[in-house]
Amino acid sequence: MNETHDPRRISWVESAQGTTDFPIQNLPFGVFRSDGRGDPRVGIAIGDQIVDVSACAHLGRLGESAATAAAVCDLPVLNHLMELGREHWSALRREVSLLLTADSPAFRADSRLGEKILVPKSEAELLLPVRVGDYTDFYASVHHATNVGSMFRPDNPLLPNYKWLPIGYHGRASSIVPSGTPVRRPQGQLKDPNSDAPVFAPTRGLDYEMEVGCFVGGGNALGNSVPIEAAEERMFGLCLVNDWSARDIQTWEYQPLGPFLAKNFATTVSPWVVTLEALEPFRIPAFERASGDPAPLPHLDSRANRERGGVDVTVEVSLCTAGMRDAGLPEQRVSRGRMADLYWTLAQMFAHHTSNGCNFQPGDLFATGTISGPGKDARGCLLELTWRGAEPLTLPTGETRKFLEDGDEVIMRGYCERPGTARIGFGECRGVVLPA
Amino acid sequence: MNETHDPRRISWVESAQGTTDFPIQNLPFGVFRSDGRGDPRVGIAIGDQIVDVSACAHLGRLGESAATAAAVCDLPVLNHLMELGREHWSALRREVSLLLTADSPAFRADSRLGEKILVPKSEAELLLPVRVGDYTDFYASVHHATNVGSMFRPDNPLLPNYKWLPIGYHGRASSIVPSGTPVRRPQGQLKDPNSDAPVFAPTRGLDYEMEVGCFVGGGNALGNSVPIEAAEERMFGLCLVNDWSARDIQTWEYQPLGPFLAKNFATTVSPWVVTLEALEPFRIPAFERASGDPAPLPHLDSRANRERGGVDVTVEVSLCTAGMRDAGLPEQRVSRGRMADLYWTLAQMFAHHTSNGCNFQPGDLFATGTISGPGKDARGCLLELTWRGAEPLTLPTGETRKFLEDGDEVIMRGYCERPGTARIGFGECRGVVLPA
Repeated sequence: MNETHDPRRISWVESAQGTTDFPIQNLPFGVFRSDGRGDPRVGIAIGDQIVDVSACAHLGRLGESAATAAAVCDLPVLNHLMELGREHWSALRREVSLLLTADSPAFRADSRLGEKILVPKSEAELLLPVRVGDYTDFYASVHHATNVGSMFRPDNPLLPNYKWLPIGYHGRASSIVPSGTPVRRPQGQLKDPNSDAPVFAPTRGLDYEMEVGCFVGGGNALGNSVPIEAAEERMFGLCLVNDWSARDIQTWEYQPLGPFLAKNFATTVSPWVVTLEALEPFRIPAFERASGDPAPLPHLDSRANRERGGVDVTVEVSLCTAGMRDAGLPEQRVSRGRMADLYWTLAQMFAHHTSNGCNFQPGDLFATGTISGPGKDARGCLLELTWRGAEPLTLPTGETRKFLEDGDEVIMRGYCERPGTARIGFGECRGVVLPA
Repeated sequence: MNETHDPRRISWVESAQGTTDFPIQNLPFGVFRSDGRGDPRVGIAIGDQIVDVSACAHLGRLGESAATAAAVCDLPVLNHLMELGREHWSALRREVSLLLTADSPAFRADSRLGEKILVPKSEAELLLPVRVGDYTDFYASVHHATNVGSMFRPDNPLLPNYKWLPIGYHGRASSIVPSGTPVRRPQGQLKDPNSDAPVFAPTRGLDYEMEVGCFVGGGNALGNSVPIEAAEERMFGLCLVNDWSARDIQTWEYQPLGPFLAKNFATTVSPWVVTLEALEPFRIPAFERASGDPAPLPHLDSRANRERGGVDVTVEVSLCTAGMRDAGLPEQRVSRGRMADLYWTLAQMFAHHTSNGCNFQPGDLFATGTISGPGKDARGCLLELTWRGAEPLTLPTGETRKFLEDGDEVIMRGYCERPGTARIGFGECRGVVLPA
């Protein structure tokens, strides 16, 4: 186990010591712009501060591998850091961890170190951390697939391929936006089942989908598969993803080639990328298949995947309507799910994705699909939570929701916690709905 | 009508005067690397020569708008030229046309002009012309959709949405390759209908799809739709696309979210982008809908689209097997189709794609889907041509084909011809199948 997880390690950054998503054991990467101070560049979150990695490099205390990594951190995306490979990004995170430790020689030698390398988050804007080349969305929650399938195909909710391969489809990279970007309600063709013809109108079925995304760090050449054993080495880290969806557009358009305009109007990602290394203490066995479920084919199976292929991330969705804001009410949590409930692991998705020779490039993103669990409170989208509108949610103002209304804000959070380890979090993935 | 189409215009480049895809009326853009001479850069095809656009700029004869365009032509992709907008790329093409005209003042003043600005195609490598951000594939041929649908759903070949909206899905941008790149036979999960379980094996249903692609020149901001009237202004030009497909992988994986690994292992594009301006003389009315077909909804309809939304491009597919090459036999044409048979126009696809606010960026690519016509000889993929293998093709060697075998080369061509105009062509889009 990597020493960066040591729960006894404490940072001299005070806000990293108490309740925070970003203790010294996390150190996720992002891209920020500080108010009026320089161009967008790479940062690492620590408590309520951002480590300016380029500024760290100027201290002259980084080893060669970390210094090489820091040298591409004055750029406005993480892609260049990713391209360098795990050795470099890992060395950089390890040395920044040492620099931030309470007994760091650099801090003992210079009590003004914080002024040199930290930027308060309150004085910075967090940007899209990665230039995403291609974006893929999976469908890895068997609970989600079964719930949605049973609404549309009551006799046959789960299709025969589901337990044999991680179903996925290509999404739109251009419309990926960072947390905080408002999302305009899309228009599209909607067809009432009782009508002969569709109409073009603003969606009446706007939904979120609570997902986790994985940024690819190291790619593969076209034509070369990546074996499941080698997949995790190529993963940089995880973020939260809101795969906004328009259910009525989707229902009308999706056959036979899958979702298109129902999804590609916006996908929101959280700004901090939590590295796979930071998640090491939270690795768990892959989903336990029921008796009767098929064993994965060999290219989707490995001992390491069975034993530690899962990641125990808890994800939560909250809503805050305009009415709630006007009444001074706090957001209301509407679901809490777990990545542990996913039928397929990240390594299985990665191996499947490249099994035909398809190439990943540094900065590509793939997401899990909606994370839903067996219980009603673990359903990761409104389609499931309200059972297609049949069971509306009631909010503290007395308002009800079948789907999202204008002014609603969706707030997603994720975290890992386990006795004997430091809790780490993903920060927030937010978006408010604007009228069409 | 633009003067660059004038069929009387003749170039001093001799190879542009006879039978060629690239007379002076065409002037498509591409990216080339000349043997041992400098970095990849933008070129324009003329006969068997390539105009080195940067070299033209050095002559000092370009006007301001064209010079601005030429200034970004020492770069290895067309994206920067596209970003400048139609005014600039159009001015550049117009001035290069003048420079290449037989009575060009520049040529009359300098008989060695050719040595300064031309590179023989035989001494150059043609590269992928564009860094494709996102790639979308449509399904715009009603003949293709009906043929394929009738194989999989005999009672219900065409789904109810088909005539209301241009069905499309997102493809993979990373695996787009230029003509001439060999394509490795993909492996994947295949399930025999008589078997309980799938196997992981090389595809036995490798196919091509003959398509035309459209490169987006001018994009739109996320959240802003582009009305159909404004769509063509944002299109840079067209190329040929081979959307390689693995039919057995597709059959097993595609429900419910559409094609994924069956398509994303490779997509081949032709190297020359034929501008919409060069295609002006070949514009035709949009597809004439049958009585009983619905009228397009208003956002997919315009007078200009009805009158001139179509493009009369003929597309041909030829095969050459290893056996044919060994026997010294020429390639064999297996189909000839027409873009005129597409149910949806490019402008309708563009308007639909942005109707929900989805953003296009300069360099994005969308393709038509397989171009098939009403006749058997106009079927643009083997799935249709051999009717899922039931009617194999017989080749001059006596070999038969249900799907592609290793060593088979697929050659696609496209051209426009019409009395009173100069014929223009698209060049070739080639790829040979390598063993898994």
